Amino acid sequence: MVSVFDVMNAVGLVAFAVVGSLKASDARLDLLGVAVLGFLTALGGGITRDVLVGRVPAALGGSGDVAWAGVGVVLAVALAAVTEERDLLDRPALLVPDAVGLAAFAATGALVGVEAGVTAFGVVVLATLTGVGGGTISDVLLDRVPFVLTEDFYATCAIGGGVVFVAASAAGATARTAAVACAGVVFTTRLAALHWGWRLPKL
Amino acid sequence: MVSVFDVMNAVGLVAFAVVGSLKASDARLDLLGVAVLGFLTALGGGITRDVLVGRVPAALGGSGDVAWAGVGVVLAVALAAVTEERDLLDRPALLVPDAVGLAAFAATGALVGVEAGVTAFGVVVLATLTGVGGGTISDVLLDRVPFVLTEDFYATCAIGGGVVFVAASAAGATARTAAVACAGVVFTTRLAALHWGWRLPKL
Amino acid sequence: MVSVFDVMNAVGLVAFAVVGSLKASDARLDLLGVAVLGFLTALGGGITRDVLVGRVPAALGGSGDVAWAGVGVVLAVALAAVTEERDLLDRPALLVPDAVGLAAFAATGALVGVEAGVTAFGVVVLATLTGVGGGTISDVLLDRVPFVLTEDFYATCAIGGGVVFVAASAAGATARTAAVACAGVVFTTRLAALHWGWRLPKL
Repeated sequence: MVSVFDVMNAVGLVAFAVVGSLKASDARLDLLGVAVLGFLTALGGGITRDVLVGRVPAALGGSGDVAWAGVGVVLAVALAAVTEERDLLDRPALLVPDAVGLAAFAATGALVGVEAGVTAFGVVVLATLTGVGGGTISDVLLDRVPFVLTEDFYATCAIGGGVVFVAASAAGATARTAAVACAGVVFTTRLAALHWGWRLPKL
Repeated sequence: MVSVFDVMNAVGLVAFAVVGSLKASDARLDLLGVAVLGFLTALGGGITRDVLVGRVPAALGGSGDVAWAGVGVVLAVALAAVTEERDLLDRPALLVPDAVGLAAFAATGALVGVEAGVTAFGVVVLATLTGVGGGTISDVLLDRVPFVLTEDFYATCAIGGGVVFVAASAAGATARTAAVACAGVVFTTRLAALHWGWRLPKL
Repeated sequence: MVSVFDVMNAVGLVAFAVVGSLKASDARLDLLGVAVLGFLTALGGGITRDVLVGRVPAALGGSGDVAWAGVGVVLAVALAAVTEERDLLDRPALLVPDAVGLAAFAATGALVGVEAGVTAFGVVVLATLTGVGGGTISDVLLDRVPFVLTEDFYATCAIGGGVVFVAASAAGATARTAAVACAGVVFTTRLAALHWGWRLPKL
């Protein structure tokens, strides 16, 4: 049975792959670089999560996520061929699916953390890393300070989702309910941050 | 019972977190970036070590190290609020605890390597990575060549400590004695390098 | 018995270590940085591969690869002392052994992937990462966009080799035959790309 998580996960994989590929195209990488950055942005967070808890990455042991990421890469190449990619990265048509992905990835990160028996801190870290790991790896490869560290109320949403997951679990919620609460918080805070331009203070 | 290693480890975690947070503040990151860099600088070396030997990172499976790193982050935020951080990073009040941390982390890295059954080369690599991994990850995220590669007689001290650990073990010392010798060598060579401005030659 | 793979692997380790050390020397790193970059360029791909499939890295658990990488570092230091390193990196005397290494590493990456039971996509990823991982890590540490993403028909050769490995296995070839086919394709496409200046299109 296809759950709402499967749908969110697929939407997120496609959106992340499109974002990664367009960033690479924008940076004038060749077709291989565009494909690599697309796949890495979509799959990198989950790979980091699985390496940390000692599992063979799901992206290497199964085919579902890879196929969705591939759809995103193909879509991005098609988009870049017919339009100016600089315009695309800030469009709601990309930002909303990206927020769906961030929410889905944070929830799966928290679930994997609970299964692996990590601490509450570990759950929050895994939720966050699963959400932002792919984009961070891409930015490092493109020789930039990762955007999650500088520009946006982005990682903060994933951290918030992880905290909500831990709180819900502590209050007796099932892992599934906690994951839904986590994803909901990530998605709504991310959209709110985009809409109202939230920023964290600087020291 | 609290051993001298526990004390050194705690001092090092606080010092590394302060250094990482101040570097992030210096680079104009927001509050989240400052916290992330602080935690990563303190915990990143140990996480790298644990991933390499196939363990779930201690930072995700237990709470002690995380708490000390959190103390460092809070301390750095407080310091940055009341003073100019550029002045702080070169002060003895920070450089000496940082050397304590480098020594403690190199020793724990060597011990974990022995437990995992790696080669002598592996022990030296794990001692070094545990000591310098956190700072290296931070510098990569801040889009800099890691300071351990360019500026200082720093990683060299950890390598020296790892070699001493291997030599002491080969000479029949217990792991504990070898770890003490390792930490002693790292700490004293680091302070000596700072005091006399030691540099490695360039080709 | 020493197989042709052992020879190719040793040639590749020496060549990769020379390349990494000369890049570091070129970037004005000190002697430690030169040695670290040399070892990392030679061993980093295999370490990444082993971490992804959950093994203690071969470079930490055995001594053979490390010794060959060490030969490369020493060779590079000697070369840099007697000549201008900028001239060296584009010489056939270095490019051909480097292609041998890329071929050998891609083949071992694919073999490890099959042993670990990953998917066809996973085999291609591991073949590629084993081939290009070391150079990528070095470039990130030197604060550059990895050359595999920007400059050359390089990672593409490893990907092609991985695909050939999967296709040969699917057609009923033994793992050993598939590995030989993989290495052959990587080596010949890499030399052809160098000779004719092949490039991938940009979007």
